[in-house]
Amino acid sequence: MFERLSQARRNARERGELSRLVDDCRQLIGERGESNSVAIAARAIERYRRLAADGVREFFDLLAGEFDPDPAEVLRLAQQYAGSRSPEDLVRLARAAEPPRQELLRRLNRAPRGTKTLVEMRAQLLHRLRTDRRLVAVDADFEHLLSSWFNPGFLRLVQVDWGSPALLLEKIIQHEAVHEIDGWADLRRRLEPDRRCFAFFHPVLPDEPLIFVEVALLERMPDAIAPLLRRDAPAPADPERFRVAAFYSISNCQPGLRGVNLGNFLIKRVAERLAQEFPRVRTFCTLSPIPSFAQWLAKVETLKSARLKPAAVQALNAELAALRARHAGELGREFALAAGSGERAGPPVAAPGAQGADGQGANGQGADGQGADGQGADADRRALERLCAFYLTHTEPRDGPASDPVARFHLNNGARLERINPGADVSRKGLKQSLGLMVNYLYDLDDIEANHERFASGGVSASRSVRGLL
Amino acid sequence: MFERLSQARRNARERGELSRLVDDCRQLIGERGESNSVAIAARAIERYRRLAADGVREFFDLLAGEFDPDPAEVLRLAQQYAGSRSPEDLVRLARAAEPPRQELLRRLNRAPRGTKTLVEMRAQLLHRLRTDRRLVAVDADFEHLLSSWFNPGFLRLVQVDWGSPALLLEKIIQHEAVHEIDGWADLRRRLEPDRRCFAFFHPVLPDEPLIFVEVALLERMPDAIAPLLRRDAPAPADPERFRVAAFYSISNCQPGLRGVNLGNFLIKRVAERLAQEFPRVRTFCTLSPIPSFAQWLAKVETLKSARLKPAAVQALNAELAALRARHAGELGREFALAAGSGERAGPPVAAPGAQGADGQGANGQGADGQGADGQGADADRRALERLCAFYLTHTEPRDGPASDPVARFHLNNGARLERINPGADVSRKGLKQSLGLMVNYLYDLDDIEANHERFASGGVSASRSVRGLL
Amino acid sequence: MFERLSQARRNARERGELSRLVDDCRQLIGERGESNSVAIAARAIERYRRLAADGVREFFDLLAGEFDPDPAEVLRLAQQYAGSRSPEDLVRLARAAEPPRQELLRRLNRAPRGTKTLVEMRAQLLHRLRTDRRLVAVDADFEHLLSSWFNPGFLRLVQVDWGSPALLLEKIIQHEAVHEIDGWADLRRRLEPDRRCFAFFHPVLPDEPLIFVEVALLERMPDAIAPLLRRDAPAPADPERFRVAAFYSISNCQPGLRGVNLGNFLIKRVAERLAQEFPRVRTFCTLSPIPSFAQWLAKVETLKSARLKPAAVQALNAELAALRARHAGELGREFALAAGSGERAGPPVAAPGAQGADGQGANGQGADGQGADGQGADADRRALERLCAFYLTHTEPRDGPASDPVARFHLNNGARLERINPGADVSRKGLKQSLGLMVNYLYDLDDIEANHERFASGGVSASRSVRGLL
Amino acid sequence: MFERLSQARRNARERGELSRLVDDCRQLIGERGESNSVAIAARAIERYRRLAADGVREFFDLLAGEFDPDPAEVLRLAQQYAGSRSPEDLVRLARAAEPPRQELLRRLNRAPRGTKTLVEMRAQLLHRLRTDRRLVAVDADFEHLLSSWFNPGFLRLVQVDWGSPALLLEKIIQHEAVHEIDGWADLRRRLEPDRRCFAFFHPVLPDEPLIFVEVALLERMPDAIAPLLRRDAPAPADPERFRVAAFYSISNCQPGLRGVNLGNFLIKRVAERLAQEFPRVRTFCTLSPIPSFAQWLAKVETLKSARLKPAAVQALNAELAALRARHAGELGREFALAAGSGERAGPPVAAPGAQGADGQGANGQGADGQGADGQGADADRRALERLCAFYLTHTEPRDGPASDPVARFHLNNGARLERINPGADVSRKGLKQSLGLMVNYLYDLDDIEANHERFASGGVSASRSVRGLL
Repeated sequence: MFERLSQARRNARERGELSRLVDDCRQLIGERGESNSVAIAARAIERYRRLAADGVREFFDLLAGEFDPDPAEVLRLAQQYAGSRSPEDLVRLARAAEPPRQELLRRLNRAPRGTKTLVEMRAQLLHRLRTDRRLVAVDADFEHLLSSWFNPGFLRLVQVDWGSPALLLEKIIQHEAVHEIDGWADLRRRLEPDRRCFAFFHPVLPDEPLIFVEVALLERMPDAIAPLLRRDAPAPADPERFRVAAFYSISNCQPGLRGVNLGNFLIKRVAERLAQEFPRVRTFCTLSPIPSFAQWLAKVETLKSARLKPAAVQALNAELAALRARHAGELGREFALAAGSGERAGPPVAAPGAQGADGQGANGQGADGQGADGQGADADRRALERLCAFYLTHTEPRDGPASDPVARFHLNNGARLERINPGADVSRKGLKQSLGLMVNYLYDLDDIEANHERFASGGVSASRSVRGLL
Repeated sequence: MFERLSQARRNARERGELSRLVDDCRQLIGERGESNSVAIAARAIERYRRLAADGVREFFDLLAGEFDPDPAEVLRLAQQYAGSRSPEDLVRLARAAEPPRQELLRRLNRAPRGTKTLVEMRAQLLHRLRTDRRLVAVDADFEHLLSSWFNPGFLRLVQVDWGSPALLLEKIIQHEAVHEIDGWADLRRRLEPDRRCFAFFHPVLPDEPLIFVEVALLERMPDAIAPLLRRDAPAPADPERFRVAAFYSISNCQPGLRGVNLGNFLIKRVAERLAQEFPRVRTFCTLSPIPSFAQWLAKVETLKSARLKPAAVQALNAELAALRARHAGELGREFALAAGSGERAGPPVAAPGAQGADGQGANGQGADGQGADGQGADADRRALERLCAFYLTHTEPRDGPASDPVARFHLNNGARLERINPGADVSRKGLKQSLGLMVNYLYDLDDIEANHERFASGGVSASRSVRGLL
Repeated sequence: MFERLSQARRNARERGELSRLVDDCRQLIGERGESNSVAIAARAIERYRRLAADGVREFFDLLAGEFDPDPAEVLRLAQQYAGSRSPEDLVRLARAAEPPRQELLRRLNRAPRGTKTLVEMRAQLLHRLRTDRRLVAVDADFEHLLSSWFNPGFLRLVQVDWGSPALLLEKIIQHEAVHEIDGWADLRRRLEPDRRCFAFFHPVLPDEPLIFVEVALLERMPDAIAPLLRRDAPAPADPERFRVAAFYSISNCQPGLRGVNLGNFLIKRVAERLAQEFPRVRTFCTLSPIPSFAQWLAKVETLKSARLKPAAVQALNAELAALRARHAGELGREFALAAGSGERAGPPVAAPGAQGADGQGANGQGADGQGADGQGADADRRALERLCAFYLTHTEPRDGPASDPVARFHLNNGARLERINPGADVSRKGLKQSLGLMVNYLYDLDDIEANHERFASGGVSASRSVRGLL
Repeated sequence: MFERLSQARRNARERGELSRLVDDCRQLIGERGESNSVAIAARAIERYRRLAADGVREFFDLLAGEFDPDPAEVLRLAQQYAGSRSPEDLVRLARAAEPPRQELLRRLNRAPRGTKTLVEMRAQLLHRLRTDRRLVAVDADFEHLLSSWFNPGFLRLVQVDWGSPALLLEKIIQHEAVHEIDGWADLRRRLEPDRRCFAFFHPVLPDEPLIFVEVALLERMPDAIAPLLRRDAPAPADPERFRVAAFYSISNCQPGLRGVNLGNFLIKRVAERLAQEFPRVRTFCTLSPIPSFAQWLAKVETLKSARLKPAAVQALNAELAALRARHAGELGREFALAAGSGERAGPPVAAPGAQGADGQGANGQGADGQGADGQGADADRRALERLCAFYLTHTEPRDGPASDPVARFHLNNGARLERINPGADVSRKGLKQSLGLMVNYLYDLDDIEANHERFASGGVSASRSVRGLL
């Protein structure tokens, strides 16, 4: 009984807070907002932060309903501009067509914790957007403004190392999304002198990394992830011998910045900086998973290609059939069982390198003749490598050009598909998603634009060795 | 001959640079700009910086001609949205109606010196705009983006003092626009412990103050400027006795940021900060010129007012006539001669305070009985004070509400017209423009919004004493 | 065979290095050292850092043998000064009596890593000193100079918190000597808003904390350590309610600075700083172990006191005998078994507070009626409390005034013995060394000097409640 | 009458302050000083700062009288040590022989403004020392401690440039002692990109430069000062062409640090730093006055030399006589009249270079044929050059080796006398003191020690060209 009463009281207080927030927003884009916007925005921001889930939902409904442009007015001005083509009419039209919501958000942003709150608001909005498509235009306004404000020209590149504040390092541990960091000792290995970690910060969010990338400095392009992550990795090589910078993990920290391009800029800025620090490092590449490969392979039926010769396509289809025959139901179960259990003699995806003592991997050295089983494993590896090359370079309507999200990201950034490494990630997740394969994407600053253009027009830049697989 | 040849060669080089810049801009908003925008923008920015005046002009023409939205497409989408009112159609419309120029500017801003260059570009654009109205829409795009980027939420408030870098202080000296700073010793006086100077900075322009304000901490609201500027002013009063913070100068440093609201935010943020540092300071006011007063007084014919009683208006007109009679041609010569020459016994605008030994001024104490001349001077002072009160509070169509730009700025910010001080600035400029009068505008943080609303609706908030003058 | 050869070669190289180091040192205090001391010192420092253990030992022998003052010359000048008492003769005498070693160390200190190396050298020297008393004078020179250089006037007080570099926090974890820090999560609890950690740094050793203290902000003076260390301690109280700052741990980080007073200065500087931040915190106390109490109690025979009345001493001796009777051999085994084993119904040292649910302790509330065992436990507690009070306030020749090192430190700093808390530390170490008791020493800045003087003259300042125990 | 009374009252207050200061000092080295020294020292320091001149004098008397070691005790311990030679006895002796005043100063230094005050105290002490030799031992204690604390290992090297705080630049202007800085515009020229200014700071005196040096980066070793000081000097040369770093001014800022070696360390540290920044700069030299040359030349009678051949000495004496004959009384009037008056056709010391249009000087190009006068001027120049070479390289008992203080400073630092430049400084001061000549001293880091040793043993390292003059 008391419970219910107090809940009612809470609801009433919450409703009051919401209705005052709405008033603030109306004032903010009205006359009062002209003179005293910072104070009004500060009130509104604090009110928003006190809203419970229901209040937030209603507030988004309000944003979607009340701050749209006036369709009749826009239409009138569009006609006028189409007639006159005068710059004055263009100015009028552009002003009228921009949703007033954008001005509201810009004014909210003037408050002390404005930017931080808007980024958090966007994260909540994206959550709601999944089930409420009416918020599409609201979200477009957020994305538009955040892209303008989190422009790389405004971001600071910060090196994260063992001298960084614990506060920041804790966030790195928390947000690492590719290869989980298992506590402070694990983190420390990733900040040793042969490693680098860089993050982007916005000046008004000094405690919030936006995105960060982890890099290993190496003598050769890496073909397996385990040696890079081992906590007891050997003492770092002489810096004079570094030739390769391998980006082995990139993680976003701010869900509210979805759609704001950050990773592309981060990789290139870090590459430039490392090129200055280590003039002998000329190769900038990634070591990346293919997270949708297993799923694709399980579902694909007959491979088709307009670009490859029919004979080549036929051979690949035969290989796919043979692979499936060798693994019967297993392929259907997505190879996943192979991970985590040592009971199978020759898992199709095990890495020879990963089995070796030195952990350096040894792509292509094969798993020496072990009779029938060994031969099957070899055949599996070859088949997976070739099918992966097909997957990443093909543009069949259904699968789309490089439908793998990681591939899409790097190829769209202008990277080249450089090498496919079977057995490069034998962790449970690596086997389940990528069947143990990993890819090196190569960032050659001179070819970025051409590679990107090829990708935009439906092609994929690939190295001679990858093309040789087909 | 050689001269002309080399000029021709320079022209050719310049044309090449311009045409490559145009190519960069097209790439930047095209496909290549998706993948490698920072590098392309960096090239474009450096090319722009090397353009001579002709090249800059042609570049602006290009910006005006090529990067407008497509009128037919906008019209089509406006019709569609007016029909459907769907959020998806709104998103399409808003995207199509925004000039692609804005995206171009956002991408240029990604380059290392991007923001700095765009601000400089705007300054050059404003210069061109005076004679070329086709640039109106280009300028609107600049103003729109710069307002979003130089949002007060992104600016840092920095106290400027004698521990600031010489580099910065030199810029303060150079940009002071209200009361000129005559070298380092003069500056130093303005940074003593009873003075404050604050500037706004943008994080990516760490060496460029955007705007700054100079404040005097005082025991009473000031009625004359000279005592504040005297280099040999007495040792500062005990900080415990400060009750008033007087903003006596505010200067913009970046012509390229015209139209971007900065002063309004700066005054309020400084007032908040001083209120924290000096809890006993409760009065935040200005000591401001009325730079268009002399000009108005010289031209105005018969005063009319819908708000004052006819008798009051009649009295004012009589006073105006008497003033003119006393000064015959002089008023026509804008009182300016009075400045700089000591030969007249009782200049109409001399400040009793300014004549006194202590320089503290003494509003209204009168210039002791000097017979006929003295009486005339007194009458002048009273007439000027009342006519100034009329000028600053009236809204005759022709003159507009507070057509004085300084008054317009403070009243629109929500300040109140607090006191008119005759003879407060007897410098040549002060006499010529303001006939020696200065005004205190009062910033009372609780009344800001109401004051602004009154001003927006055609009225002017004024103190009882100012209203008493009418 | 090869082994031995290469060892011989190493020895030879080492000997060469040592002999060059000796040459450098001789040059450094000789003529060459006048002009180029920084370069010579830099060479010497680097050579010292490469020495193996044998080389270090021989180097110390050299320091002990070669850089003493000339006894005959000192004697001559002492006679001359005793005769003349002239300032000139005093200058000569003081110069001659100072071991040239000090000038050598001052010149070594001019090298880039000089100070750091000298502090490390001292740590090695102290290690040797345990077995080689010839190094006494060398060590005195080190202590003399380091005390002058690590003068509190030169040290920076730095607050350590979760925004501090991981590099620093790692050293805090490593050097905590009183209550071990069990990893990063444990550390984090000690840096929450109701806790403080401060360290002293020397400007030329920016990565090396010298000493640090951990403080808990509380509502009441604490009577048990466990509640302060619990990782899941409740959310911090409202800062408005803090009344007590309890120093619960102080740890040196630099063994090479032994004998250099740092802790005394640190406690007082932190107290001043907290008093400014929290004006309502008026009580600055410690919660300290009595690490030698168990040992003393095991060995002491009959208590004697010239200051207490004979009857009181007699009562204490009776109590000691009864305690021993109750615990027979156990007291001889130093009560240590009680820790870590739950098998005894009423361990003599268990804290009632520590058994309670809230962990806040509850001094004196007794361990509710448990029949005979309970009565025995109560009697044990009372006896231990009184015997501890006797131990800490007495000055029997054999035991010395407050022969406990922690008591000696705080009492010599001018603190007062404020309260004895039985059962305050039931960790294994706490039981073994202090029989579970802890002490609050109170720092009242107004009484520091008087308390210290009393201690210096053989007395101990104690609160009324402690005196009441006797 | 009132005057006198109030003076008496002031005296009484002053006496009270002094007597409390004396009490503080006694406490500070007594028992109380053990526990609460920072608080006592803080009181004492503030009291000292309030003393008037008389009080300071009496305080120094106290320092001289009360804090000496006990002669009998020192003598006893000196005998004991001479007998035992034991390290323990050495420790006792060293402790007893050190004046307790040093411990007093070390404890005063623990107070917040301690170091700053002690440096100022020393400056006042040096002033008193001129007339009161009883303070010799007090001063020796100050110098001893300040040398230990202002050890170059503790100092920070700071580059002073146009981005430095005005506060600091103002002190540079004020303390420049060699070539006066005439205001901010003049200073700015000395901070342009082809110039450098570096200062030493102590970490606890962050606003107080201790000493600074001004450097010009040049293509050739400079032979005249005027071109370096001209405010309108041409735009800086391409940094790639810098080959020489010329130290043209070095100034102490702290009179209280007299006797503490700073300049020697500063020059070498700056040379190292510039060598890193400009690998092609290999020549580090000075352009220095010979401030005592005119005085020496006016007084010297017959030149004698044990090192030169008699014929050479004879030739020099002839040249001296001829010079005197040519200038009769003028040489007696120290050539000073030549400065500042343009009326003489061929002043003996005018620099051809300084007369030229480009101001680059042109050593040895001669002052074109002007007949007799011109010939006399040439002869004067040659004579002055040779006499100066003699002066700077000779060690006649009376004049001492390089009795010129600037020469003594650089030669003792290990520099080499590289070149003598007649007519290099035609300012009034340059003519009066140095007869217009300036010297390049060369700092070759490899020869520092050898050059210093030669100087210490009575010789002077000079270049072949300087030696050729003799």
